[in-house]
Amino acid sequence: MGTYENMAPSEVRELIRKQVITSPTAGMSKGYTQANLAILKKEHAFDFLLFCQRNPKSCPLLDVTEPGSFRPSKIADGASLLTDIPKYRIYKDGVFTEEVTDITEYWEDDMVGFLIGCSFTFETPLLEAGIPVRHIEENCNVPMYKTNIPSEKAGVFEGPTVVSMRPMSPEDAIRAVQITTRFPSVHGAPLHIGDPSQIGITDITKPDFGDAVPIKEGEVPVFWACGATPQAVAMESKPSIMITHAPGHMFISDVRDESLAVL
Amino acid sequence: MGTYENMAPSEVRELIRKQVITSPTAGMSKGYTQANLAILKKEHAFDFLLFCQRNPKSCPLLDVTEPGSFRPSKIADGASLLTDIPKYRIYKDGVFTEEVTDITEYWEDDMVGFLIGCSFTFETPLLEAGIPVRHIEENCNVPMYKTNIPSEKAGVFEGPTVVSMRPMSPEDAIRAVQITTRFPSVHGAPLHIGDPSQIGITDITKPDFGDAVPIKEGEVPVFWACGATPQAVAMESKPSIMITHAPGHMFISDVRDESLAVL
Repeated sequence: MGTYENMAPSEVRELIRKQVITSPTAGMSKGYTQANLAILKKEHAFDFLLFCQRNPKSCPLLDVTEPGSFRPSKIADGASLLTDIPKYRIYKDGVFTEEVTDITEYWEDDMVGFLIGCSFTFETPLLEAGIPVRHIEENCNVPMYKTNIPSEKAGVFEGPTVVSMRPMSPEDAIRAVQITTRFPSVHGAPLHIGDPSQIGITDITKPDFGDAVPIKEGEVPVFWACGATPQAVAMESKPSIMITHAPGHMFISDVRDESLAVL
Repeated sequence: MGTYENMAPSEVRELIRKQVITSPTAGMSKGYTQANLAILKKEHAFDFLLFCQRNPKSCPLLDVTEPGSFRPSKIADGASLLTDIPKYRIYKDGVFTEEVTDITEYWEDDMVGFLIGCSFTFETPLLEAGIPVRHIEENCNVPMYKTNIPSEKAGVFEGPTVVSMRPMSPEDAIRAVQITTRFPSVHGAPLHIGDPSQIGITDITKPDFGDAVPIKEGEVPVFWACGATPQAVAMESKPSIMITHAPGHMFISDVRDESLAVL
């Protein structure tokens, strides 16, 4: 891991392409933004792009390819969406069918790739500000919950906003609002602080995705819009084929985290 | 004008719909965001949406309608794009053909409406901070220039970034950077300060669009990405039909300017 942490994104992507790396990407190419992947056929691309445009907090788009192109040239020069992610998931008619390390044989000429910002980008500045991030301390996935906050519908795409949760002291929560406000293009400020039931979460110990984490005495749960929203929503619409990254196995871009800050 | 300044957006839109108001909208419904309009047929909508997504500083999308819908429901409840703008322009194959006050007869079932943020939104906080805005003082249109900064291409859409220019003292320019940074969803911070030739502007006294304004001794020109970019770019691609607002005759939304600030 130590080696990959200080390796350039293009070098890590090359090792992924050669399947030397097939593991989760957390911590690799430190300081560079990682992204969620969703691939859909052109027939759904306008509606999905519109869905992301209407729900920018949960669906912050970092790059969208031209129809038929698997080159995310805005955020990663020379990269390929066919091979440069350690693990992919294939969904047919909304059902998970298999996990693969290369999607060349699944690619179709009318497919569009969507790269969506991920909370890794703001967790680094949180840690640097001395704010502990519980799921990193616990070495597990961030807990994620479906809420009663509806997304703005676009064509066939609709569904609830998914949030990620990080427990922290009220003082840290205030600082975390300031820090994540600097990153409006990667989820931005929290959606909610405090009472989970106000956003439709009935049991904070049972996340819908990811792992539960302990909330200590005196801490408040802080909720951010989550990049799992567009995937969950797209799946609901049961497209004939959809390809995503496997959880934690992200696309590593050439974009520096700090270049996404507005201040 | 005094009356319209303090009138609610829905009331002003009703007067526009009845053609009581057919004039430029500057200063109406103070504190509420106004938007540029572009209407295209569905065949171009994905590429245009992608163009805006790739060029967020010049093409900040406030709302995009479902194909066939003329209701910008995200930013204005009950409004209609067919009648609620004082003056429209019709372009056929990229050529301006006429100016009308109602586009009902031009509307087609596969059209998509794009509402794009406009610099009016950040001029109010500039004025409130005591920064003079020259074209408002001179009671003319803001000067706009084509630059040598290319937009990111998307499908058939490509072309140079258009900028608007406001001259001010260096101290005011610094404060203006701070203020407009608060509004990343309406052009955000300036693209350039100082030497026009660095961004390909050969004669600052001859804007490509709008009116020239005087630059006083000791002032620097400050340049922002301009919402005229997507219209200019769309026109270049010569779509069979495109409908826009007439210059200065904007769509008045129910969104408060301040709600678009990130801080």
